[in-house]
Amino acid sequence: MMIQATKKVLAESLSSLERIVQARSSNPILTYLKLEATGAGLRLSGTNLELDLETSVAAQVSEEATVVVPAHLFSQIVRSLSSELVELELHGNELNIQGGGFKTKLQTGDLDAYPELSFPTHFDTVLDAREFSRALSSVRYAAATEAFQAVFRGIKLEMSEKRTRVVASDGFRLALHDFAGSSAEKSLILPARAVDELIKLLKDGEVHLTFAGSVLSLTTPRWKLNLKLLEGEFPDYERVIPREVKLSVRLSATQLREAVNRVAVLADKTANNRVEFQVSGSSLSLASEGDYGRAQDVLEVFQEGTEPALTLAFSAKYVTVALGPLEGEVLIQLSGSNTPALFKAAEDSGYSAVVVPLRV
Amino acid sequence: MMIQATKKVLAESLSSLERIVQARSSNPILTYLKLEATGAGLRLSGTNLELDLETSVAAQVSEEATVVVPAHLFSQIVRSLSSELVELELHGNELNIQGGGFKTKLQTGDLDAYPELSFPTHFDTVLDAREFSRALSSVRYAAATEAFQAVFRGIKLEMSEKRTRVVASDGFRLALHDFAGSSAEKSLILPARAVDELIKLLKDGEVHLTFAGSVLSLTTPRWKLNLKLLEGEFPDYERVIPREVKLSVRLSATQLREAVNRVAVLADKTANNRVEFQVSGSSLSLASEGDYGRAQDVLEVFQEGTEPALTLAFSAKYVTVALGPLEGEVLIQLSGSNTPALFKAAEDSGYSAVVVPLRV
Repeated sequence: MMIQATKKVLAESLSSLERIVQARSSNPILTYLKLEATGAGLRLSGTNLELDLETSVAAQVSEEATVVVPAHLFSQIVRSLSSELVELELHGNELNIQGGGFKTKLQTGDLDAYPELSFPTHFDTVLDAREFSRALSSVRYAAATEAFQAVFRGIKLEMSEKRTRVVASDGFRLALHDFAGSSAEKSLILPARAVDELIKLLKDGEVHLTFAGSVLSLTTPRWKLNLKLLEGEFPDYERVIPREVKLSVRLSATQLREAVNRVAVLADKTANNRVEFQVSGSSLSLASEGDYGRAQDVLEVFQEGTEPALTLAFSAKYVTVALGPLEGEVLIQLSGSNTPALFKAAEDSGYSAVVVPLRV
Repeated sequence: MMIQATKKVLAESLSSLERIVQARSSNPILTYLKLEATGAGLRLSGTNLELDLETSVAAQVSEEATVVVPAHLFSQIVRSLSSELVELELHGNELNIQGGGFKTKLQTGDLDAYPELSFPTHFDTVLDAREFSRALSSVRYAAATEAFQAVFRGIKLEMSEKRTRVVASDGFRLALHDFAGSSAEKSLILPARAVDELIKLLKDGEVHLTFAGSVLSLTTPRWKLNLKLLEGEFPDYERVIPREVKLSVRLSATQLREAVNRVAVLADKTANNRVEFQVSGSSLSLASEGDYGRAQDVLEVFQEGTEPALTLAFSAKYVTVALGPLEGEVLIQLSGSNTPALFKAAEDSGYSAVVVPLRV
């Protein structure tokens, strides 16, 4: 085969594949990626067994051929070229890579040992790529990194005609984000690590979804993905969402975040960075205490509800992270000192966060 | 005491002190910094026993006082304030820090246990701060991080009326940088870690130097530093600088750096990332070989000298790092395949690097 492709386009596609394909593996063939030169261009694919990824780049192909090459080395070589064009030529089991005065002979791998990757050609439903990506990235933080149940390291995707919802929780906090519905009625759990890659790959336009047992396939104009789903039962998160609001406050999300960070400097690191929230008379007073002293900040708020005053304590980090996806004003809905608090945008953005308070 | 200072100015000074003062220490008082409120403003000082640092910021002081406070906490608090002014007030052993609606009571430390820091008021000589900083940062990379002799982790400062020279070497490579001389005749070894801080603190204008036994003191309009010198004999570096040039080549430093990086992708990581340099007929050919294949790049060069051709091998990283401080064209002076090579700017910038080749 003899292939000519644009360095910039090829390098961009490779940088995404490089994030999926492991640099080291007990099964070395998994550190390779597959190049398929066809009349339609150059197809690139790779896998980490949890996520398969495929893309195509425009290329002039004189002869069809398929090879597997070490993913990270190949990507590094292409990225380092000073020329605008990359020329690939297969000689036996050596792939010549050329650009400018530079020539490489790269050993290719065992094509027969490479796992078979196949992507669907029919689609079950469709979502707006940008909204889906935004929803996933706003709840991602609430998934657990380590937990006894794997489902806590997943993000639940609930689809119906009415709405699509993504939910993540580690048992101490919960984040959810609603956006426009789809034609499917389906509930799945996506592994959070694979979601990190999905967020990076979803851009504009539409993403098509195909359901096939334990795999969700996603197709965008540029990428094809197979994503291995998590099995198990996602916890019944609805019951931690506070229903009866006794007191609600509204204030600038940025001001609150900065004030919590300030007060948390003095908070005891060994006691969850505990910050006390005291609401009364249209003011929110934040206080902390630790080995080196005490800190206090007072913010003016808009206050409503049947309860005239309430005191709660939160882990500072949980509050500042929950405020992360919010712009403008935050609405905090409280139902008691020992019941979960709800944080959402005063002008509903689809996003809500629930934080369980520390014991008073 | 009651002190008012500008948050921005105070936070800037604290961020430099924070880099010097350790966050943890077997002697906890060393994690503190000293605040001295005087008629002239607020003086701040800290130490890690290798480096003492002092600065002053403008402040309105109603009553003179001296306290020590946990350096990192104090800095974090000041940085987090939303107000333009910081108010400090001492009550017993608590320092009140106030700004906007925020109030902190910070426990102060044991002033008597704090080490006595003193800075000179007379100066022995003077250097241009920007040139000194530039020279130090261009040779810094060549100092060893770990070595049997501490002097290899140091940077030699040689001062005479004719010129000032800084030199660093780890035995495999050497970097030196010459600039305008001083009125002193002196030779010292500065610890590389302290040099890293010095580089950040030296800006425009002049820096005054004071010699006192094993300590070098440096004074700029903003900072006072005491720097504990390394003892021992710096190796006789002059003998590795090649004298008799048999072949020299000239080419773009950036092009060479990029080409070495490209070729090094295929080089054997377990064999020093060996890249072969072959000069002949006004071309420089770079080649490498490793488990995954071979790479080659050819660059046009301007070639001079009595020897028509030479082949050497270098560790790729040593060459690319040596080229780092060079702009424009690099002049490479060779005297043989197994003798050190000299790299410097074609238009002399004061900087030279010597790299010992790998065995051919």
